[in-house]
Amino acid sequence: MNITIVGLGVIGGSMAKAIRENIRPENLWAVDVDFNILKEAYEDGIIDDIDSDVKIYLESSDMVILCTYPKAAVDFIVSNMDNFKKNAIITDTSGIKSKIVEEVRKVLRQDLEFIGGHPMAGKESSGYKYSDGSIFRGASCIITPDEYCSSENVLLLKELLFKIGFMKVVELTPLSHDKIVAYTSQLPHVIACAVISSKSYEEGKECIGGSFRDMTRVADINCHLWSELLIENKENILTEISSLVEGLKNIHAIIENNDRYKLEELLKKSSIIRREMNYEGN
Amino acid sequence: MNITIVGLGVIGGSMAKAIRENIRPENLWAVDVDFNILKEAYEDGIIDDIDSDVKIYLESSDMVILCTYPKAAVDFIVSNMDNFKKNAIITDTSGIKSKIVEEVRKVLRQDLEFIGGHPMAGKESSGYKYSDGSIFRGASCIITPDEYCSSENVLLLKELLFKIGFMKVVELTPLSHDKIVAYTSQLPHVIACAVISSKSYEEGKECIGGSFRDMTRVADINCHLWSELLIENKENILTEISSLVEGLKNIHAIIENNDRYKLEELLKKSSIIRREMNYEGN
Repeated sequence: MNITIVGLGVIGGSMAKAIRENIRPENLWAVDVDFNILKEAYEDGIIDDIDSDVKIYLESSDMVILCTYPKAAVDFIVSNMDNFKKNAIITDTSGIKSKIVEEVRKVLRQDLEFIGGHPMAGKESSGYKYSDGSIFRGASCIITPDEYCSSENVLLLKELLFKIGFMKVVELTPLSHDKIVAYTSQLPHVIACAVISSKSYEEGKECIGGSFRDMTRVADINCHLWSELLIENKENILTEISSLVEGLKNIHAIIENNDRYKLEELLKKSSIIRREMNYEGN
Repeated sequence: MNITIVGLGVIGGSMAKAIRENIRPENLWAVDVDFNILKEAYEDGIIDDIDSDVKIYLESSDMVILCTYPKAAVDFIVSNMDNFKKNAIITDTSGIKSKIVEEVRKVLRQDLEFIGGHPMAGKESSGYKYSDGSIFRGASCIITPDEYCSSENVLLLKELLFKIGFMKVVELTPLSHDKIVAYTSQLPHVIACAVISSKSYEEGKECIGGSFRDMTRVADINCHLWSELLIENKENILTEISSLVEGLKNIHAIIENNDRYKLEELLKKSSIIRREMNYEGN
């Protein structure tokens, strides 16, 4: 099996390292706009070649994993449509799915298979130098096969994902993915940025504990990638922000009314849900 | 030096263990409503005696550390006002300060010294069995000495705090403390509860990554303690919730207008602040 990874950033690099370590494909190639990164990965023994053209790699790759920004992933697929090997599986790792699947579907050759993917794992820092083959260990990965995907190819992709360390692979429709991820991933990033942008930060920063540190960890964000992700998933993230604002207003009203009973009930319910989350290993 | 700890919950127990390990006072005593807990701590070799009356301990204690809920701390001081040793230092660990300092000040004997304290460290789980002498290591502690506190006693308390592991001791007025903590500690707890109480949780819980996990960690909250803390610090926490709602509405508007430039600017600013926070060791 030959695999090509497109985009050797923190996710692509981590993917390459995890594949190198756990899959041992016949050939592992990579494509990146920065040749120095390719050279580094080659010298690290992660990829097998750096001297050939993208076209050469794609023509021999059974699987192509796109680890770029969402729009760049679509652009890459569109402009390389004639270069993919017959029956190749193409997957990606980007944080939105409906638009990507829709755009890819418009141009995809009939023999090719596109299965969207989104690892629920990452790092604040971006770039190959922060890549780490172990970041997928124990994490979940969402995949979004549609009606055009064959079950054996979905199985093949799932096997690869488990082999590189994922503990759980969740199959969702692209639409469900975008709705769910707006809540489980995009909202925490928006909150972290909103909290740390507060005018209270300057005075408060000397008195920070674990709750603030953990809550704002993802405010150290890749602004180019995330502005694209948030705007591309606009409808869902706006719904989640509005729903959180309602939730906060509700707590505001309860505290304002000194309604200790209601407040205790709400906090108790939260603590039960959070504890169950731990037990369920989510 | 003899020390008495009032309330052997997770903080009181951790404080007792840290003191036992790092200070080696002549006597370390504790008071708790649950005699079994005292027995356990005695059998663990953490406290030196369990057979005497509270009065006996207080009459010989140079320092008394209250690790109870805020109101219970005030009640304890009020009802034991005649029992404290001459010139004793009394401190506490509760998450609000203005009301406590105000109430204590009303009844405090002239020879006694009350210095409010609030460790920026804790655990989700409550109770002595979760106590751990190492939780203060590397953390910050806020103390709120007022004009009645002598500088040598403040120094003595600070020395003790550094010895049991705190990396930083920040002196604030009780009013500043309550304002700052509403932002750095209470707001993250409110957000965690609001996020996890969302109706989106049920569908989303299979697709959770690190950002959601970290953001909601403190939703596993002690509902009795926190409903008291939030209502007692009502004015400040309401201001912080309102300010966050404004921040979220601002991001909502930016995304709604597809204003990618503004969004990138906001995210970039957030990432710079968050990264500086790491560098500054806060």
